[in-house]
Amino acid sequence: MLILLEPSATPEQVREILDLLESSGIRGHVNESPDALSIVAPHASQAFKPDRIEPMAGVRRVVPITSPFKLASADAVTARTVVEVHGVPIGGPGLVLVAGPCGVESREQLFTVARYVAESGVRLLRAGAFKPRTSPYSFQGLGVEGLRLLEAARAEFGLGIVTEATEVEIFEDVERSADMIQIGARNMQNFALLRRAGRSDKPILLKRGPSSTLEEWLYAAEYVLSEGNRNVVLCERGIRTWADHARNTLDVSVVPAAKALTHLPVMVDPSHATGRRDLVIPCGLAGIAAGADGLLVETHCQPERALSDGPQALLPSDFIRLVTLAQSVHQALQIPTTTGLWM
Amino acid sequence: MLILLEPSATPEQVREILDLLESSGIRGHVNESPDALSIVAPHASQAFKPDRIEPMAGVRRVVPITSPFKLASADAVTARTVVEVHGVPIGGPGLVLVAGPCGVESREQLFTVARYVAESGVRLLRAGAFKPRTSPYSFQGLGVEGLRLLEAARAEFGLGIVTEATEVEIFEDVERSADMIQIGARNMQNFALLRRAGRSDKPILLKRGPSSTLEEWLYAAEYVLSEGNRNVVLCERGIRTWADHARNTLDVSVVPAAKALTHLPVMVDPSHATGRRDLVIPCGLAGIAAGADGLLVETHCQPERALSDGPQALLPSDFIRLVTLAQSVHQALQIPTTTGLWM
Amino acid sequence: MLILLEPSATPEQVREILDLLESSGIRGHVNESPDALSIVAPHASQAFKPDRIEPMAGVRRVVPITSPFKLASADAVTARTVVEVHGVPIGGPGLVLVAGPCGVESREQLFTVARYVAESGVRLLRAGAFKPRTSPYSFQGLGVEGLRLLEAARAEFGLGIVTEATEVEIFEDVERSADMIQIGARNMQNFALLRRAGRSDKPILLKRGPSSTLEEWLYAAEYVLSEGNRNVVLCERGIRTWADHARNTLDVSVVPAAKALTHLPVMVDPSHATGRRDLVIPCGLAGIAAGADGLLVETHCQPERALSDGPQALLPSDFIRLVTLAQSVHQALQIPTTTGLWM
Amino acid sequence: MLILLEPSATPEQVREILDLLESSGIRGHVNESPDALSIVAPHASQAFKPDRIEPMAGVRRVVPITSPFKLASADAVTARTVVEVHGVPIGGPGLVLVAGPCGVESREQLFTVARYVAESGVRLLRAGAFKPRTSPYSFQGLGVEGLRLLEAARAEFGLGIVTEATEVEIFEDVERSADMIQIGARNMQNFALLRRAGRSDKPILLKRGPSSTLEEWLYAAEYVLSEGNRNVVLCERGIRTWADHARNTLDVSVVPAAKALTHLPVMVDPSHATGRRDLVIPCGLAGIAAGADGLLVETHCQPERALSDGPQALLPSDFIRLVTLAQSVHQALQIPTTTGLWM
Repeated sequence: MLILLEPSATPEQVREILDLLESSGIRGHVNESPDALSIVAPHASQAFKPDRIEPMAGVRRVVPITSPFKLASADAVTARTVVEVHGVPIGGPGLVLVAGPCGVESREQLFTVARYVAESGVRLLRAGAFKPRTSPYSFQGLGVEGLRLLEAARAEFGLGIVTEATEVEIFEDVERSADMIQIGARNMQNFALLRRAGRSDKPILLKRGPSSTLEEWLYAAEYVLSEGNRNVVLCERGIRTWADHARNTLDVSVVPAAKALTHLPVMVDPSHATGRRDLVIPCGLAGIAAGADGLLVETHCQPERALSDGPQALLPSDFIRLVTLAQSVHQALQIPTTTGLWM
Repeated sequence: MLILLEPSATPEQVREILDLLESSGIRGHVNESPDALSIVAPHASQAFKPDRIEPMAGVRRVVPITSPFKLASADAVTARTVVEVHGVPIGGPGLVLVAGPCGVESREQLFTVARYVAESGVRLLRAGAFKPRTSPYSFQGLGVEGLRLLEAARAEFGLGIVTEATEVEIFEDVERSADMIQIGARNMQNFALLRRAGRSDKPILLKRGPSSTLEEWLYAAEYVLSEGNRNVVLCERGIRTWADHARNTLDVSVVPAAKALTHLPVMVDPSHATGRRDLVIPCGLAGIAAGADGLLVETHCQPERALSDGPQALLPSDFIRLVTLAQSVHQALQIPTTTGLWM
Repeated sequence: MLILLEPSATPEQVREILDLLESSGIRGHVNESPDALSIVAPHASQAFKPDRIEPMAGVRRVVPITSPFKLASADAVTARTVVEVHGVPIGGPGLVLVAGPCGVESREQLFTVARYVAESGVRLLRAGAFKPRTSPYSFQGLGVEGLRLLEAARAEFGLGIVTEATEVEIFEDVERSADMIQIGARNMQNFALLRRAGRSDKPILLKRGPSSTLEEWLYAAEYVLSEGNRNVVLCERGIRTWADHARNTLDVSVVPAAKALTHLPVMVDPSHATGRRDLVIPCGLAGIAAGADGLLVETHCQPERALSDGPQALLPSDFIRLVTLAQSVHQALQIPTTTGLWM
Repeated sequence: MLILLEPSATPEQVREILDLLESSGIRGHVNESPDALSIVAPHASQAFKPDRIEPMAGVRRVVPITSPFKLASADAVTARTVVEVHGVPIGGPGLVLVAGPCGVESREQLFTVARYVAESGVRLLRAGAFKPRTSPYSFQGLGVEGLRLLEAARAEFGLGIVTEATEVEIFEDVERSADMIQIGARNMQNFALLRRAGRSDKPILLKRGPSSTLEEWLYAAEYVLSEGNRNVVLCERGIRTWADHARNTLDVSVVPAAKALTHLPVMVDPSHATGRRDLVIPCGLAGIAAGADGLLVETHCQPERALSDGPQALLPSDFIRLVTLAQSVHQALQIPTTTGLWM
């Protein structure tokens, strides 16, 4: 149930509505944006008819929610969500880049990359301390030691840290160190992990599973949202198809399709989507042109020595090229299009 | 076999090499570009060792061709192919749009669309006179009458005509009327049709099959090229995957991946790739950002009345928006990227 | 429109109904099976209301056809179609095997294989004289010479001949030589070829396209049926997916799913479906267990020397094993299942 | 490293080898089968060269393991693994059926189904107490109460219990109640859960992920095996493709393909693979014909009232039919095939 409030509704009036809901064991989430105030209460329609709520003070209108994504749905709020990570707003008018190596390998490796990432103007650093790996015999990350190095990189370069929590058991460790916690593609339907993320006060970057439909992806977001954490950013990272020229198929159309259904920000990871360094820049730019709020990219000072995913990491010079072109394409979308003159 | 010639090679020297090849039943194609001159002779290595050709006058070097795409391969020529259609160069520095309704339905419909297409600055009109349809009971196009209307539209609005030849039997009719002949996705491996297209003097727009790998697509191009027609433009139009938010999945990474393997121009058709009007513009822009040489888009004055594919046709106002944004994004890619300043 | 007739309807009564339909330019097809007699008239409902036909002599009931597959639909006839090829009924209670090399390569090769195929009890021989090949540089078959060799094999071993017509241009040649004409997977939506097949008096083996849905496959059958040729056998041959342990993914569930929608027989080609010799027998047996009316398999006396598709051809000894097991599994399905005793 | 032992090797000799390995922190697993004795030591080759081990008493030969699946690999042992569940051997000559409702809903529902399952001769009951659900708002199972009901069903009907552990947190509860623990498709790459399963003394049923390659599936098994639990049974349950006539595409060829790479038993779940009741029996039989060691099927006394997956559950009468036909097809594969007489 979506309860649209009067812009003039007082905190007391809001409190009263929430109390009524809670008296039936229903949790309501207050959404406040510059131009709207509302309460979303997923299960309220089981307990209350709209006409029980509508006459209450401060209420403008009560809308039964029909989308199966009660909280993720674009219908559920009247403004798009902006998620702030280390002072960087994701989902606002600006473009956001998150960059770094696939995994934390050493202090030297991490700091070298973090330095040129910071110098490029990018303000969020990504790197895995815990790595989910297909084979039990592959490098699984530095673990807690990696988290310490990430904290040191934040202190040194002022970058916000985005890193993955691969399982419930290590979630708290990651939560303490990270500014944003990534749920990886293979964990998109790890419901225990999603619920744990939903109880975190850190923003969540939710990658799309490699064979997940848009609907399943939004349901996964709903698992996080319904536990109370409203700071979720979606990230498309390529889907599994029979096409064999790249590791995955970047599904660029899911960006506008997702934005039509949800108010959550949507990013694109062209590195995992392609697995080929020469495709990362064109595909990253394609993501931006399709309307993505930002990119998640891998860059490495010595990709040929990377312990994982070397072939897809951008060289420093290519990374700078991407940063420049990304901004250029993003700005190209802002032009007024009423005139429509060709050439 | 690729025979690289001296820039100073005379026509007589070239003739002599071709004659030698022909004496063994081998056809050689001469490639002439501003900065290189070469002969590609697909089967020559079966008859001649490089050291038989290399000493000949005008020859700089002989390269055995290892790519299976002897003529389509980027290795085969030292410059990208530019295909000229009705005076519009496809594959050059500029961006090319081809637009129009899915099918020719009537003079009124075609002329209404052609008028606003022409006014937008777009110079190539697309519309099917012969429509391949999944069901034998669906509208199959106006046929020869549709070709007449397309000719009339060219005369009236000065637009070049791009239209599909669905089978060998009607190829000659289409060839007479069209400025560029489309081979549709379902016919990508109709080898008889490809060979017929290879014997045409009209440029060919070769759509990728919905489940075709990049390699198979280039082999299809090779069928056309190996018959002598060197004016082939590739067109990505979405592939069949399990993703269900759009009719097909636009495989945007195939654009740079194709350009790494072939010298042929590559276009993108966001209309068939998505099947949803609201995804056409973001996906078209994504194609351009990924490096496509142009777009093929459907637009219709009254999509709700279209006899086929109405839901994916852009309204006139959206079409103008796409034209403007497409140019803007294309220009955004041209910036120098040495400085790399972010913001 | 489906016109169910009285079993006692006379030829004259049938003629009268057909004449009425034809007076409005509508062709009706008479279906005669041991237990039912009917007329299917695809477009009749545009010209006649049921109550115009129902009172006629010999008519029991008139059913408007709602399935989009007017002729292929299981609703359209009251009995399953049995297609007879060289005296072998496909779609009846018995299991049918069609076997032979991928392509006709020489008289010796063809006759060696045909001999052990015939000795195994299999009565239909498959081999391509015209081969559709992905690359223009691959072996394309012996052509008309191959057809002559197939005719010679029929004369020598008494086998019926199943061979592919790859394009309209050579259809007549194939038609003269073959007992059953195959439309290959890549041609499943070559509508000109389908229509030509529909005007043939030879049975058609219609392979499913590698990315074709069941609906599209039935529409392709409908193209053949609607031209008048009612002898169509469907053949599943694997679909294109991301699974990489086999060349294609045998979609075994499409066999019962197709049988629920259409009265046409359904066969399975485990050779192309897998591309791996060691998977052909288990997958062939799987097809039979799923209810297929027969198998199309490749076998070769010297697979390592085959000019095409060697790795998937069964060795003679494996072929004999398949023949035996196939019959055994087919018979296992015939047991009464009312008792339900386990062990 | 695979250490093949003399059949006459004494327990002391085996102990000595294991002790040597352990002195370098390497765990060795002893494989004992009627016709072979061996030690598999995944990481031994990092510490020892073959010639350090080969001269030891009782050792016949030392083989460096090249397959990436050190423990799952068919090369790693000389006999197929047989996993015993509640006295029922899976992977032996007999066929095994595991049947029951999708989820435990009530004592009455569970006991009704368990009764006819037991009466059919099937000895293993499946039903979920914890249900992983795409939506957070769907029925998630009865939880621990469901486990109690499953234990009661075992006591009442003598059936072994197969049920899913959806997350690490509830693993111990499930472990106490179940005779075999299922890892579901969505958890196939939940590595924390796999490692926990590897430390269990209960057999594991490892479902294939909906977009998992055969290699990834075997790596997932390797996660379990490498922690010490050697009782793993693989289960194919359909993969995600674009084919739309069934919920998933049963990949029947993965059964023989898996058996060529691993010694682990392979089962098939035709219920989730198809999602359509009318396809379950043909697809289940197809799995058996392809060589599966058994089936996992859903059956429900009142499918129309099931809280989840009702449309795919077999009715009691259909279930009995499947049991009978499954045995019949399984027996049909056992015939000697040397004679090869057709009919």
